[in-house]
Amino acid sequence: MSNSIKIAIDVMGSDKGPEVIISGAALSKERNPNSEYVFFGDYEQITKLVKKFNVLKNSYEVIGTEEIVSPDDKPSTVLRNSKNTSMGKSLEWLQSKKVDALVSAGNTGALMALSKLKLRTLTGISRPAIATTIPHSNGEFVMLDLGANVDCNTENIIQFAIMGSEFAKVVLGKRNPKIGILNVGTEQEKGKVALQEASEYLKNSYLAKQFSGFVEGNEITNGVVDVVVTDGFSGNISLKTAEGIAKLCTIYIKKMFSDTLLGKIAYLLIKKSLDSLKTKLDPRNRNGALFLGLNGIVVKSHGGADDLSFAAAIDIAFEFSKEGVGDKIITGLKHFNMQGEINDKKKFN
Amino acid sequence: MSNSIKIAIDVMGSDKGPEVIISGAALSKERNPNSEYVFFGDYEQITKLVKKFNVLKNSYEVIGTEEIVSPDDKPSTVLRNSKNTSMGKSLEWLQSKKVDALVSAGNTGALMALSKLKLRTLTGISRPAIATTIPHSNGEFVMLDLGANVDCNTENIIQFAIMGSEFAKVVLGKRNPKIGILNVGTEQEKGKVALQEASEYLKNSYLAKQFSGFVEGNEITNGVVDVVVTDGFSGNISLKTAEGIAKLCTIYIKKMFSDTLLGKIAYLLIKKSLDSLKTKLDPRNRNGALFLGLNGIVVKSHGGADDLSFAAAIDIAFEFSKEGVGDKIITGLKHFNMQGEINDKKKFN
Repeated sequence: MSNSIKIAIDVMGSDKGPEVIISGAALSKERNPNSEYVFFGDYEQITKLVKKFNVLKNSYEVIGTEEIVSPDDKPSTVLRNSKNTSMGKSLEWLQSKKVDALVSAGNTGALMALSKLKLRTLTGISRPAIATTIPHSNGEFVMLDLGANVDCNTENIIQFAIMGSEFAKVVLGKRNPKIGILNVGTEQEKGKVALQEASEYLKNSYLAKQFSGFVEGNEITNGVVDVVVTDGFSGNISLKTAEGIAKLCTIYIKKMFSDTLLGKIAYLLIKKSLDSLKTKLDPRNRNGALFLGLNGIVVKSHGGADDLSFAAAIDIAFEFSKEGVGDKIITGLKHFNMQGEINDKKKFN
Repeated sequence: MSNSIKIAIDVMGSDKGPEVIISGAALSKERNPNSEYVFFGDYEQITKLVKKFNVLKNSYEVIGTEEIVSPDDKPSTVLRNSKNTSMGKSLEWLQSKKVDALVSAGNTGALMALSKLKLRTLTGISRPAIATTIPHSNGEFVMLDLGANVDCNTENIIQFAIMGSEFAKVVLGKRNPKIGILNVGTEQEKGKVALQEASEYLKNSYLAKQFSGFVEGNEITNGVVDVVVTDGFSGNISLKTAEGIAKLCTIYIKKMFSDTLLGKIAYLLIKKSLDSLKTKLDPRNRNGALFLGLNGIVVKSHGGADDLSFAAAIDIAFEFSKEGVGDKIITGLKHFNMQGEINDKKKFN
């Protein structure tokens, strides 16, 4: 099985139990025959479950681990006691390059802390970021950082732009994705100093043609840019507000169809489109978030993901392993630095 | 006409022209017979328009001003040349207490800068905040700050909580509105230091019973709290993301009804509920934002507001003048300080 891509799967991280994880792997395997899995977790449980899926035959191994990182564990506790957890062990395999990528539905804070410790950041990258795709009126855009870094300086923002651009090339299939920095206004003097500085640097860099300047929260869903760059605090607030409002819309729509008899009839007529709208608005159906900027591909799936959704997260891991995004980010960063945009000017705030 | 409430109206600030402003005033006057208006702007135009509305008869005056603050004017420019603008002149009237409140649909940055200069902050308040109401699944909540303060320290956050509580009492009619601080997690150690400190202080203050700790972006639309406290950067991003997603939902819904014949039939059955949903999701139909923490009531209406929406903004100005919210904020602040929560501890970051 040469040239296949080997993906580590943390089987114990899901809120819904190991079955959806193994079932998700089977679904992804159907789409990506060239993939192999290493399952980490309860040996007996996994061995039993895997046998249910014919497609997985001869393309997996199981590494038994005794302990589990729970959703409430603090990152600091996890860092001390990770050795025998499915999360910690699978990251060790990624660190020693025995696998090409890792997918986990476990505790985000713990996964990020462990990933940073085991994998370290790519040469030249100060801090990793969490990135995902979000629907807009006419497709999808990429947003980062979504919560790894509460406070960001100019350099972080620039590096997120470089990483986001490479991420968008793969997930959106665009050659020159348009990049915008999330801000409270579009004029250069608006918002935080770090954003203004990053904007100036980007305007004068190899990314100049892709860079659209500042974008506001109400514009990102119009598809004005392909990559929305932000600090982890604002990114997290923005993403979660979007989830909250999408859920609110679903509640309103449901009420509209259930409140009157005419509504109920209309519901029957339009049920199919309505279900697909619900799916579109449901954040669980997005395909996982990527930790960008590390020496290794880590995909974080929602804890409550079902098998379809977990399969989508594995797909992402597969695509990224194929594309060698890490190397492209390093190249982008070198290119940026060679132009003297970051290092030759003043120190960052 | 004793005991009436006198409201200054900046007639020239609307994107839709003076007519919607005067028409909005007439609508609000019908609901609040005890109000009087002072219209600032083009004397001839206003005098002509006002005559169209019988309800306004004998309850207004017109102050002619020659210049206009445009949506693109920078606050700094406006500060230098405000004397003869409808915005500047109406603020002068508010400053000298010739009116009880001011409503403007003009440039937000300019209005805030001018308001700070002319009115100054309430005794003890370091910085004013912009607050508005936002729908949740079961009513509305108040959010502040929405963009006046890009960076906020512990003291600012605490003061926003005090001001937001008084605002919520008036607009939501709740005696003990629940307060939450917007953050990237609900645990005390999450997010920014200023938020953690503010949370600690609030837990030990007269607001302790109202304070629910941290809330996340996806929770605020569930109605878990009545007041969402945040810095102006995150607040602006959150509000605008909400607007963007609401608009996206409207587009998706529209598409659902127009894509197929069955959809078109369903549309006819449900048109009325659908229109009311559209109205609910349309940010223009919210009733304006209040500048809190100044010696005077300034209500900012959306620039693109129609007459109904502008009337709602005037209603808010009327309610707040009646309730004397400024005095209540000062009392709350004194109460907070007397308990020693702010002043006796360490200096704020």
